[in-house]
Amino acid sequence: MSEKTGKVALGIDLGGTGIKIGLVDGSYEILAQVSLPTGAQRPYGQIIADMGGAAAKLLKENGYSFAHCIGAGVGSPGTVDSKSGTVLYSNNIRWEQVPLARELQKYLPLPVFVSNDANCAALGEVLKGAAKGCKNAAFFTLGTGVGGGIVIDGKVFEGGHPGGVEIGHMKIGSKGRRCTCGRLDCLEAYASATALIQDAKDMAAQHPESMLWELCGQDLEQMDAKMPFDAAQAGDACGMALVKDYIGYLADGVTDIANIFRPDVIVLGGGVSAQGEKLTGPLNEYLKENCFGAAVAYVPKVVVAENGNQAGIIGAAGLVMTSATTPVCR
Amino acid sequence: MSEKTGKVALGIDLGGTGIKIGLVDGSYEILAQVSLPTGAQRPYGQIIADMGGAAAKLLKENGYSFAHCIGAGVGSPGTVDSKSGTVLYSNNIRWEQVPLARELQKYLPLPVFVSNDANCAALGEVLKGAAKGCKNAAFFTLGTGVGGGIVIDGKVFEGGHPGGVEIGHMKIGSKGRRCTCGRLDCLEAYASATALIQDAKDMAAQHPESMLWELCGQDLEQMDAKMPFDAAQAGDACGMALVKDYIGYLADGVTDIANIFRPDVIVLGGGVSAQGEKLTGPLNEYLKENCFGAAVAYVPKVVVAENGNQAGIIGAAGLVMTSATTPVCR
Repeated sequence: MSEKTGKVALGIDLGGTGIKIGLVDGSYEILAQVSLPTGAQRPYGQIIADMGGAAAKLLKENGYSFAHCIGAGVGSPGTVDSKSGTVLYSNNIRWEQVPLARELQKYLPLPVFVSNDANCAALGEVLKGAAKGCKNAAFFTLGTGVGGGIVIDGKVFEGGHPGGVEIGHMKIGSKGRRCTCGRLDCLEAYASATALIQDAKDMAAQHPESMLWELCGQDLEQMDAKMPFDAAQAGDACGMALVKDYIGYLADGVTDIANIFRPDVIVLGGGVSAQGEKLTGPLNEYLKENCFGAAVAYVPKVVVAENGNQAGIIGAAGLVMTSATTPVCR
Repeated sequence: MSEKTGKVALGIDLGGTGIKIGLVDGSYEILAQVSLPTGAQRPYGQIIADMGGAAAKLLKENGYSFAHCIGAGVGSPGTVDSKSGTVLYSNNIRWEQVPLARELQKYLPLPVFVSNDANCAALGEVLKGAAKGCKNAAFFTLGTGVGGGIVIDGKVFEGGHPGGVEIGHMKIGSKGRRCTCGRLDCLEAYASATALIQDAKDMAAQHPESMLWELCGQDLEQMDAKMPFDAAQAGDACGMALVKDYIGYLADGVTDIANIFRPDVIVLGGGVSAQGEKLTGPLNEYLKENCFGAAVAYVPKVVVAENGNQAGIIGAAGLVMTSATTPVCR
């Protein structure tokens, strides 16, 4: 294959079970993609060696030399020091103080950028997705936990120090729920899919008449985050109560972020965001009423993410394209 | 007087009752200062004419021409559009859609910068005060309300649109208190001096044995925000309960901001901050335990503001010096 000359970037989405690597062009189209298992139980050096080898192979197989790749971006779970490219701590992949950028450059002689995976997803939606063309956006990912990312002036906001931009870890509740972070009553303890599923199980256990039982096949362990919404849709009182509470929790978090960042849009991603208009409809209504200064000031719109499971790759490549973080060992 | 040639800026602190104008040098020393009544009931044109006239006079009387003044900064209460230099809404001075920068330039042929007063106070603490030398800082002002400002990379963060950076308007409570902004349970409804005084009155009304009665001279209308702290210091159970609750509310807000911005420091200003170590001691203890990722990540320190009632002037001049906002009509 003849060597191609258009500029590309590598976007790498590091997850607890799999690593997705994409070759991304300047329009944020994914030209080619490869996946490999993380094998998170292995030493980090092996994981990063596999990652780097697969990325280099992807480039070469698609006809690009390192000279035509402007860099590699990696979205990692956990707390990341983007300045040094180090993963300080990640529960998912059991990493502590892993010099990801430095290690990866053993295999990729390129500028390497590292950020938190939710930061990457946020950036991806701004570059190509629900917030395309926006300079300022906030992103909530509603999954196992509640992650988040903030884009300011087109770039990922990393916080003053690592450990910032944890918008899932604002206090919004009052039931004394212990969050995974150790604090009481964080948004994550109420608005994650995990929390919604637990609330649905508790509700069903108290209400044998609820349609939730039918939906989960009489087995609470089969409950998922869609079932409360389906029950609500069908007019089940328990489902409706669950959805009302859930949207209330999320509205609190969304309004806090609107008052603090006043972005162009607030994007919802992660599993629960598949509910689309059922979430964004009431959230936008709530914001219009409750956002600070709504009568005179701009009220951000809540929208649903569009990049799906490509969000990580697009955003990680976007770290390179926007030079959103300080490059490591350029 | 011979004309001076060092570069200076004008810092203007617009308040509900008074306007303070300072001539500030490059080290953020106030070389000269003048105050005048706001006369907030008058048309805005008259107020701004007085402001501009007094500022021009201050310059001239101190031997500076407009050529040696690099600009004027104004800190205004309320919701400000710093891009256009417009005060969108201010309850204190009863302004709506006032083109402050444009009007002021009729009297001051200089670049004019406008921002919210709490933003200015935050910047002032970074330029000369408790956060001096910090690139990233958060500032809470604990007064009639709870205002706030955020400095990112040495500049005021204005939010994506006007109405942002309202860190007093995050939900932290659960008692169903209606905030001045219309929303329920904002930090302001719990951690302002106003809220503390109301809590102290309610507590005293329920506890005739409390020392609070003695401190307020048996007249609840004389209660101030210092009395609960004084009562607590003397071992009064009601005072101790009030202070414990108050610090708990503030700890929630401070921890949210630490998790979202992870600044170098979090500065407390406004009347209640006079309690100093009585606040910062327990807040720093709380943060060490509850800040997200405290075991691996940087934990911001809570400190008390140092600029006192000069904060507005220093910060407003700082808007000019740091070109923190887009200048209007340069």
